[in-house]
Amino acid sequence: MVTSRWTAAPARAASPRRRGAVLERAILDAALDQLGTVGWNGLTMEGVAAGAQTGKAAVYRRWPSKEDLVADALCAGLPRLDAAPDLGSVREDLVALCREARDAMFSRPGLALRSIIHECDPIQVERFHTLIVGGVVEPTVRLLHEVIARGIERGEVRSGAANSYVFDAIPAMMMYRTKMCASEWNDRDLEEMIDQFMLPLLRPDAS
Amino acid sequence: MVTSRWTAAPARAASPRRRGAVLERAILDAALDQLGTVGWNGLTMEGVAAGAQTGKAAVYRRWPSKEDLVADALCAGLPRLDAAPDLGSVREDLVALCREARDAMFSRPGLALRSIIHECDPIQVERFHTLIVGGVVEPTVRLLHEVIARGIERGEVRSGAANSYVFDAIPAMMMYRTKMCASEWNDRDLEEMIDQFMLPLLRPDAS
Repeated sequence: MVTSRWTAAPARAASPRRRGAVLERAILDAALDQLGTVGWNGLTMEGVAAGAQTGKAAVYRRWPSKEDLVADALCAGLPRLDAAPDLGSVREDLVALCREARDAMFSRPGLALRSIIHECDPIQVERFHTLIVGGVVEPTVRLLHEVIARGIERGEVRSGAANSYVFDAIPAMMMYRTKMCASEWNDRDLEEMIDQFMLPLLRPDAS
Repeated sequence: MVTSRWTAAPARAASPRRRGAVLERAILDAALDQLGTVGWNGLTMEGVAAGAQTGKAAVYRRWPSKEDLVADALCAGLPRLDAAPDLGSVREDLVALCREARDAMFSRPGLALRSIIHECDPIQVERFHTLIVGGVVEPTVRLLHEVIARGIERGEVRSGAANSYVFDAIPAMMMYRTKMCASEWNDRDLEEMIDQFMLPLLRPDAS
């Protein structure tokens, strides 16, 4: 907005001065970009500011450190795992839920999170590890609780199945195979895991 | 052995000159010691030589690099996972096998292997990771094959259970909980895992 103080000044170059959420979004996107190109080690507050076409001060004002900035950029970028699928059978629900978890793990922020952990030092690793847990694992397990409870109600799942080992089974297997065989968990891998591993684990007892 | 060349020389200090396997054993033990005290970063060939009361040359002659030395020290120190337990029931066999895997993971070399992975750079991480797989995971899975095959023969285990997800279930769960909740897998945890996770997964179908 032009005030009377400025009427005598020359017209300014048309670079809009962004504020609030728009500027923050630009900074977080620039941080994700930097992570993807130069990685954790190459990322600098200056580089992020430049990528967001803003000044260093605008970045530091909101994020006191590189870790804080990267943590927020990753969190903000992860796909949401909000609602448990409800597709008519526990098999379909589990397959849909696993696809969402897979999509989060292999999203740009998901991949960045997992590679960062090899680049930074132990204290930072701890913090980013907590992000993976809070951002992907815990939401998945919460939704799993719902899917399994519904399966028990429907008689598709045995009543003793709501235990912590069953809830850990999917994240454990997905992390394990990602690490051990660089599995990318395509749709067929996920269905195989549900059919050969989860359904036998969950099926009702002979009685 | 004293030869005629030495008869005029003064008596030597009684420090036995070790050779072959004895000296190698001393060097490998000194390497494990160093790993436990100063860690990967603090370990030096000189420090290991001093700990083994030998010279640097004796170490370098056998191990061209720090990675080679540490890899051998860890491998040589891991408990063997040779024979599948055969105790009369698949439950008892699985519990016994898991105890052995747990003992390997939490042995001095097992713990050293797992902590090293946070201290060294990606190429070395890859190499040590391969050691964990070759030294603990693969032997465990091989023995699991035997235990499960025997269970199928006895009718304790369903015939479709000999699949890769079932074989990965125990290592996946043990690694996951070690990482996520710093589980130390005491005997009760292991039995819980077998009772709440593996036995339901393996039980025969209703038919």
